[in-house]
Amino acid sequence: MIKLKRVLTIAMALSSVVLVAQSDEDVLKTIYKQSLTNGQSYQWLNHLSNQIGSRLSGSLGAEKAVAYTKEELDKLGLDKVWLQPVMVPRWVRGAKEYAFIETERGKTNTVNICALGGSVATPGLGLKANIVEVKNFEELEALGKAEVEGKIVFYNRPMQADLISTFEAYGGCVNQRYSGAVEAAKYGAVAVIVRSMNLRQDDLPHTGSMTYGNLPVDERIPSAAISTNDANLLSTMLQLNKDIKFYFKQSCKQLKDVQSYNVIGQITGSEFPNEYMVVGGHLDSWDLGDGSHDDGAGVVQSMDVLRLLKESGITPKRSIRVVLFMNEENGLRGGKKYAEVAKQKNENHVFALESDSGGFTPRGFNFDCSDASFSQVLSWEPLFKPYLIHYFEKGGSGADVGPLKTETNVLAGLRPDSQRYFDHHHASNDTFDAINKRELELGAATMTSLVYLFDKYGINPINTSGNIKK
Amino acid sequence: MIKLKRVLTIAMALSSVVLVAQSDEDVLKTIYKQSLTNGQSYQWLNHLSNQIGSRLSGSLGAEKAVAYTKEELDKLGLDKVWLQPVMVPRWVRGAKEYAFIETERGKTNTVNICALGGSVATPGLGLKANIVEVKNFEELEALGKAEVEGKIVFYNRPMQADLISTFEAYGGCVNQRYSGAVEAAKYGAVAVIVRSMNLRQDDLPHTGSMTYGNLPVDERIPSAAISTNDANLLSTMLQLNKDIKFYFKQSCKQLKDVQSYNVIGQITGSEFPNEYMVVGGHLDSWDLGDGSHDDGAGVVQSMDVLRLLKESGITPKRSIRVVLFMNEENGLRGGKKYAEVAKQKNENHVFALESDSGGFTPRGFNFDCSDASFSQVLSWEPLFKPYLIHYFEKGGSGADVGPLKTETNVLAGLRPDSQRYFDHHHASNDTFDAINKRELELGAATMTSLVYLFDKYGINPINTSGNIKK
Repeated sequence: MIKLKRVLTIAMALSSVVLVAQSDEDVLKTIYKQSLTNGQSYQWLNHLSNQIGSRLSGSLGAEKAVAYTKEELDKLGLDKVWLQPVMVPRWVRGAKEYAFIETERGKTNTVNICALGGSVATPGLGLKANIVEVKNFEELEALGKAEVEGKIVFYNRPMQADLISTFEAYGGCVNQRYSGAVEAAKYGAVAVIVRSMNLRQDDLPHTGSMTYGNLPVDERIPSAAISTNDANLLSTMLQLNKDIKFYFKQSCKQLKDVQSYNVIGQITGSEFPNEYMVVGGHLDSWDLGDGSHDDGAGVVQSMDVLRLLKESGITPKRSIRVVLFMNEENGLRGGKKYAEVAKQKNENHVFALESDSGGFTPRGFNFDCSDASFSQVLSWEPLFKPYLIHYFEKGGSGADVGPLKTETNVLAGLRPDSQRYFDHHHASNDTFDAINKRELELGAATMTSLVYLFDKYGINPINTSGNIKK
Repeated sequence: MIKLKRVLTIAMALSSVVLVAQSDEDVLKTIYKQSLTNGQSYQWLNHLSNQIGSRLSGSLGAEKAVAYTKEELDKLGLDKVWLQPVMVPRWVRGAKEYAFIETERGKTNTVNICALGGSVATPGLGLKANIVEVKNFEELEALGKAEVEGKIVFYNRPMQADLISTFEAYGGCVNQRYSGAVEAAKYGAVAVIVRSMNLRQDDLPHTGSMTYGNLPVDERIPSAAISTNDANLLSTMLQLNKDIKFYFKQSCKQLKDVQSYNVIGQITGSEFPNEYMVVGGHLDSWDLGDGSHDDGAGVVQSMDVLRLLKESGITPKRSIRVVLFMNEENGLRGGKKYAEVAKQKNENHVFALESDSGGFTPRGFNFDCSDASFSQVLSWEPLFKPYLIHYFEKGGSGADVGPLKTETNVLAGLRPDSQRYFDHHHASNDTFDAINKRELELGAATMTSLVYLFDKYGINPINTSGNIKK
């Protein structure tokens, strides 16, 4: 019996020698192979999407998702798994919204809308008013109170189709959705209808967060998104007759904050246990679809990073944490709480990577880091080439990891192919059938590879002269 | 009237001066913008897929597609549009196939199969026999006549999931489908069932071409594809009981060759009209889906290349041809005929680009060319970077343009993201809903950009020492 034990010990020692001798090329090959042939992310996402479904902060779905992901992390044999309490806002949609365009009394065209997240309801019987179209806040200002008061403001600036990054196109439009109500209220508007943030022409309204800023409660006006097809229809009908009326009804409301959690798992570092590397996505989603791309994909990929490290025989020197953030969509409370607690505990977070741009074919990463760290990343480009990972750009990372930024650490965001993302984003078709298993698994492997490299080589700090300190 | 004409002439002269002064960066920007905001490929594909449908060589769909694409090219104001006659094979599927696994008399499990293109039918009442599983021809040979005679051979080697290029995974498996029957017939097999060339686990059988080589007509055995789910089921049932029987029935047949056409359009070159640059895809498709990805996408993208050149104000120096090849799938007669006629007419084809890898996000190109030409391509990498086109590799182009190869010319193939391609390839879900408009349009713009650059700078020929000749 002792003999067998000794043989095993020797065999294990030998096998770790073999691992140490492995080139980075070999390690990445192992990681990608593990993910593509033995990945867990797709099965986890199937459960999260099809058994649990949407996970809006404070909902039963969110609660179930916390329990499920904690349970699954518990099975992975990590060094530590825990829940981090965080209070989250709770907004509920209520009954399905209803809207129509009225050309003359009794002649109506039903259109597809959904309340924006955080919006107030219309009066119980709905709201009907004249409607005025603008493309941006400058046009709104030019119209002024005379043209806006008592009316619904219709923001109809489309996402710019000739931008290659659809996230850039989104960035160029989303102020209509986020600040449209508070801007329109200044001029006495009674409500706001916003063209959906969608590059396709279709019938699906896309929700998303909006703000009332400092607007007193009694001055808040209801705000809804309209599908791109219906935005075009409404625009055409307004050109034919500016006196048409728009009716809509929604019964959403903001309830009291409720208790929720970030879900955290950790592999404790073998050499530098007090240096933390985070990989994460957000567990909450909007309520219309099942949140498969936004951000179920990021959640399961992040979970799989820790599993893939283990399965690939990698013993990280630093402590690697998966953090499943709660409430990215309408509050970012989870991201803020995590950073707050990290600061309180004086935890040195040297690296944080978020996946929150969909589960499509990974193309690379964005980095929020020093030039020295970015040079380090660029030196790894050849390692990623066999996996068609080619995009390494400075600027941007992820909303949830943003609060962890320090002068010397590295924040990163996975960048999948973005062409299809806004077809699904915040809409009822953000569902599991839009996920491709291989694309999801390639993302998990790509994240794992970056974590492996930063753990192995450490973060290049900058000295005061801005040069790399070895 | 004369005055106005003069003003117009001056204006036109000025506008071409402006064009000449445009940088390549600006021209590519114009091309991509045109395609993404004013592209025609998606609308054309909608008609081809949803109004015409599948286009197997010799079918009514193929005939309609010839007429439709010719008509659409006629509208573009090209210098010349014509049909090039080509005789094509005509294989018809007949009634929907039917198959089951029989564990004991009367106990059956229905499974999903489809005849392989070119296969003979089973006897009218179907065929039932024992079935033996192999992973490759070596295993088949090892079994030998003793174990194979009178049985159905079941080829069940899956596509390799850890290969990043799904085309490589396909290449590693497709000999089972193409040559499986002729190999099995050597050992007296009565039929062949082949695992579908599909990386997903699902219920869809994938067809594709197969050969009987020199096998006499009376020795040809029927050959069908089985879905990946049912291949797994069949394999499991065989492990439980090797005496189970497999039954299938198919009524496909090979009819006489029929007349068909390549569809060709041309912009005649302004400086070197006798140097030809071809861009193309294949007009025929398999019959199960509507051939949107294979290769409706390549057809409409190629058509749009000529339109986008015109819309972007580019006057090519060389003659640019769009060639919509007939019969890539089961004969390559169109590609062979086009090259044959080009040779007869002594037409100097300096460049040919094919799009036949699906309508997904373009990543780059493969090139079959000299090192000198490839260096030229690599010098253009920075121009493509803003469009996330990063993949430029030597080796491979496209089946239809292959016969045009000379020592000095450049053949190329568009390489879109390949992860989803084999989910749809040759199956009933190769349909228009799997096409993303932006991805398709990005492909058309990427092709147009390469054609623009090669036309502007010409092909770097090699001299006898293999160096670049300026």
